[in-house]
Amino acid sequence: MKIAQVAPLTEAVPPKLYGGTERVVAYLTDALIELGHEVTLFASGDSLTKAKLVSNWPRALRLDPTVRDYFAPLFMQLDTVSRHAHEFDMIHNHLDYFGFPLLRQVGVPSVTTLHGRLDLGELPHLYNHYGDMPVVSISDSQRLPLPNANYVATVLHGLPKDLLHKGEGNGGYVAFLGRISPEKAPDAAIRIAAAAGVPIKMAAKVDRVDEEYFKAVVEPLLGTGDVDFIGEIAEHQKSDFLGRAKALLFPIAWREPFGLVMIEAMACGTPVIAFNNGSVPEVLTDGVTGFIVENEAQAIAALSKIDMLDRAKIRGEFDRRFTAQHMAQNYLDLYARLAGCC
Amino acid sequence: MKIAQVAPLTEAVPPKLYGGTERVVAYLTDALIELGHEVTLFASGDSLTKAKLVSNWPRALRLDPTVRDYFAPLFMQLDTVSRHAHEFDMIHNHLDYFGFPLLRQVGVPSVTTLHGRLDLGELPHLYNHYGDMPVVSISDSQRLPLPNANYVATVLHGLPKDLLHKGEGNGGYVAFLGRISPEKAPDAAIRIAAAAGVPIKMAAKVDRVDEEYFKAVVEPLLGTGDVDFIGEIAEHQKSDFLGRAKALLFPIAWREPFGLVMIEAMACGTPVIAFNNGSVPEVLTDGVTGFIVENEAQAIAALSKIDMLDRAKIRGEFDRRFTAQHMAQNYLDLYARLAGCC
Repeated sequence: MKIAQVAPLTEAVPPKLYGGTERVVAYLTDALIELGHEVTLFASGDSLTKAKLVSNWPRALRLDPTVRDYFAPLFMQLDTVSRHAHEFDMIHNHLDYFGFPLLRQVGVPSVTTLHGRLDLGELPHLYNHYGDMPVVSISDSQRLPLPNANYVATVLHGLPKDLLHKGEGNGGYVAFLGRISPEKAPDAAIRIAAAAGVPIKMAAKVDRVDEEYFKAVVEPLLGTGDVDFIGEIAEHQKSDFLGRAKALLFPIAWREPFGLVMIEAMACGTPVIAFNNGSVPEVLTDGVTGFIVENEAQAIAALSKIDMLDRAKIRGEFDRRFTAQHMAQNYLDLYARLAGCC
Repeated sequence: MKIAQVAPLTEAVPPKLYGGTERVVAYLTDALIELGHEVTLFASGDSLTKAKLVSNWPRALRLDPTVRDYFAPLFMQLDTVSRHAHEFDMIHNHLDYFGFPLLRQVGVPSVTTLHGRLDLGELPHLYNHYGDMPVVSISDSQRLPLPNANYVATVLHGLPKDLLHKGEGNGGYVAFLGRISPEKAPDAAIRIAAAAGVPIKMAAKVDRVDEEYFKAVVEPLLGTGDVDFIGEIAEHQKSDFLGRAKALLFPIAWREPFGLVMIEAMACGTPVIAFNNGSVPEVLTDGVTGFIVENEAQAIAALSKIDMLDRAKIRGEFDRRFTAQHMAQNYLDLYARLAGCC
């Protein structure tokens, strides 16, 4: 099948720094190629891909200090997609609704994966307007604030099979991995570990916007219990960091649309203790790949029985449900259905 | 002719507060109606127009505290335009390049007036992509940083004939009218008036972003000479404010694409002393509607001979070149040329 992947220009594909959407586009694109399909990736020029790269802008916008009008490169990209559109059986759009006016009229089947939060009050009106545009949610839970969009599937994210490796969980600590922000509740993670008497290692970046929160809420807790705050880690350090952890703590305080870190832990065989919020019950299997809890007391109790869980089985669940190939196959089934072909 | 005017949703048409683009769209729309054409205005729901109003959003976005995603209403508007497109002979777009992906494919002639600054480095690349989209500049000077766009005309702005009235210039002061910002050079205006020994009245708003500049540069000068800083004035006060002034000082320090205040002064019969920058030589006729000068010394000299100019003749030049009807007729000629009809 001839497939276009249209990625945001904010970060490279895959991103040099943080950028969940661009990471998933990178994994999907390479997996589609491995499955034998012909893929063209529309992305920033510093992207690295097995696909044919078509680029209108030499580098990721977030790292380009010369850019003053961030929408101009995006509209250049839309033009380029329209000029190449007839070459494809399917155009897979990752630019949210910015692609709709073009894709509706381009005469080629398309689908749009919604990567972000959908709980903004304007969006139900918007998706009433574009009710003919097929969209994919990245969890069923993501749909709740926007039930009226034209969903054609939920496709959960996946990671390349060999990106992360099963570890033994023998580091004697629990892990927290993510941004420091109220939604991720690093403070709850610290309290849970302290109450359970287990050391916690926190691999977390602090964005400028969250510095005040860090100073006010997290820093005072760093002396509580046994907290090792190691800051941001690179992709290649994740396997070791997660694989040696007894568990990942994910006391999420908002309706996260997906939560890649849960499947990263699973790829390392590491169970996840997660608050029951957002996509959590769709990603985790309670009592198998971790424990889904309602509050900190339940999380502390879950931690005391974490060694019951079988790390090989957790990795097995990752292999069964969350590889990039699995995600790519789900999208291919959808492409075929929408394109009525292949 | 059946004409669509597509206005930004940022301000109402006409704007309740500042908003040059929406003001011009309002004047153009009403003038087209007066000339007997059938006009549909796509704009915020709090707009007031003689045209048929089609609105996706109840109020101007700048005044709507509920909006979190400002682009969602814009993309709703684009959808609505596309659904109505077949009803029109011409779609006149005022959303800059945001309308291009739609307008290119909609199958109805369109034209886009570029209202803003064109000196951003991304734009030449963007307009190479959309080199087939016809655009209108609001002065020839505006084109300089972006020579490669597909310009089909320059159409200077106009004002309703009866919006402002000729005054006698007998207030004994010179006027400054506009935002307080370095580009508008209010400090130069104060120095020019002081050196010429003429009182100056300044009707100027200070945006939050310019408060620091105001405190540092303008406030210390308010004690120099005879300065009356009267703050922001309403539309209905302009006729009196400008009409009683001996001259408008317009010592502009950037390449302003148009500069509505110059033709507002002309409508009041008030000559303009302007620095030779941007659209100034296209709007003013040196020695007739004002004096075009290169520096403050020349401005001071010009002020000493300002009473030579004939205020009735200045108003006559406004009537000849800068009424909204004149602007509308220029656009109509262009619509007919682009649509090959009517």
